[in-house]
Amino acid sequence: MKRKQPAKPAPVERDERVRHSKKTVLMATYKLLSEAGLSGVSVDAVSKRSGVAKTTIYRHWPSRSALLLDACSNMGSRPQAPDTGSLKGDLELLVKHTAQQLRTAPWATVAPSIIDAAERDQELANVHARTHSGVRTPFQTVIERAQQRGELSRDLDPSHVIAAIFGPLFYRRWFSREPLDEAFTKSVVERAIRK
Amino acid sequence: MKRKQPAKPAPVERDERVRHSKKTVLMATYKLLSEAGLSGVSVDAVSKRSGVAKTTIYRHWPSRSALLLDACSNMGSRPQAPDTGSLKGDLELLVKHTAQQLRTAPWATVAPSIIDAAERDQELANVHARTHSGVRTPFQTVIERAQQRGELSRDLDPSHVIAAIFGPLFYRRWFSREPLDEAFTKSVVERAIRK
Repeated sequence: MKRKQPAKPAPVERDERVRHSKKTVLMATYKLLSEAGLSGVSVDAVSKRSGVAKTTIYRHWPSRSALLLDACSNMGSRPQAPDTGSLKGDLELLVKHTAQQLRTAPWATVAPSIIDAAERDQELANVHARTHSGVRTPFQTVIERAQQRGELSRDLDPSHVIAAIFGPLFYRRWFSREPLDEAFTKSVVERAIRK
Repeated sequence: MKRKQPAKPAPVERDERVRHSKKTVLMATYKLLSEAGLSGVSVDAVSKRSGVAKTTIYRHWPSRSALLLDACSNMGSRPQAPDTGSLKGDLELLVKHTAQQLRTAPWATVAPSIIDAAERDQELANVHARTHSGVRTPFQTVIERAQQRGELSRDLDPSHVIAAIFGPLFYRRWFSREPLDEAFTKSVVERAIRK
């Protein structure tokens, strides 16, 4: 038989408090990631920054990786797959959004530290793979739709088209540090789907 | 007036010792980078691992960044620009070599930690830019040669072609972790130079 707890808050109020505390923890994780990269994020550091107890953090996220996954998957805005009527139009919208995020979003500064850690940590590699697969989804959708309506050859492997789009954008942002201007993003889309 | 040092070794012997000690330091830096990423490389750690005194290390490299630059630029093998007679042939050779390096060379494991640190450290960003510009050189050479002989339009920006080649390779190696197989590398070259 359960002991009665008169001071227990009503379920709605409790849900609200849980939601607030989870949000506080995710914000703290996100800020630590942006400031110091992955090595700055321990459950200890997140607890200190957020003021939320470690036991509470572990109640919501079983591991540091789970917490990172959750923080990362909330970091960038995820566009819906557009439907402009042409593959070129759809991809231009998506690429414009991606380039904008690469130029300004805090996750663009944080991503390399996750990529780096993933080289030596299989669990983080899985975190990253899941996060990235979400980023690919709208691209996959518009490419497959174009194949279904016969606009793009079904012989083309969608994953090659996706690599031809993300690759040059990521390359300029993190490797060569050249500008992601409109002339470049347009040429990326044209080259990726050229017959 | 300089004090006479009777025990001073002959110049040739001294040069040999300097060369040996520099090589030992670079090897230690390279090994530490491969094992632990950039955060594992301090001049202290390199001195301990190599057995070469910190003062000697600082005599050859004025800063940790200078040491990193030297170690990194010696990490991968740099191919000469090939001359097969066709741009496609030249690029296929270069891309095959790059894909091979991305699959097996230790620098492929280390590069993300330099990219990551470069986000927060301008000096390292310069180290990386200089290292990477050396990697681009043979690609730049074969592309410009193809433009000179009229095989590739002069309207094409060589830097766009380079991004269309490195981008998808780097993307698969570090971001999506998909295979860099021959079907993929061939499609990368074809797409990059397609008219």
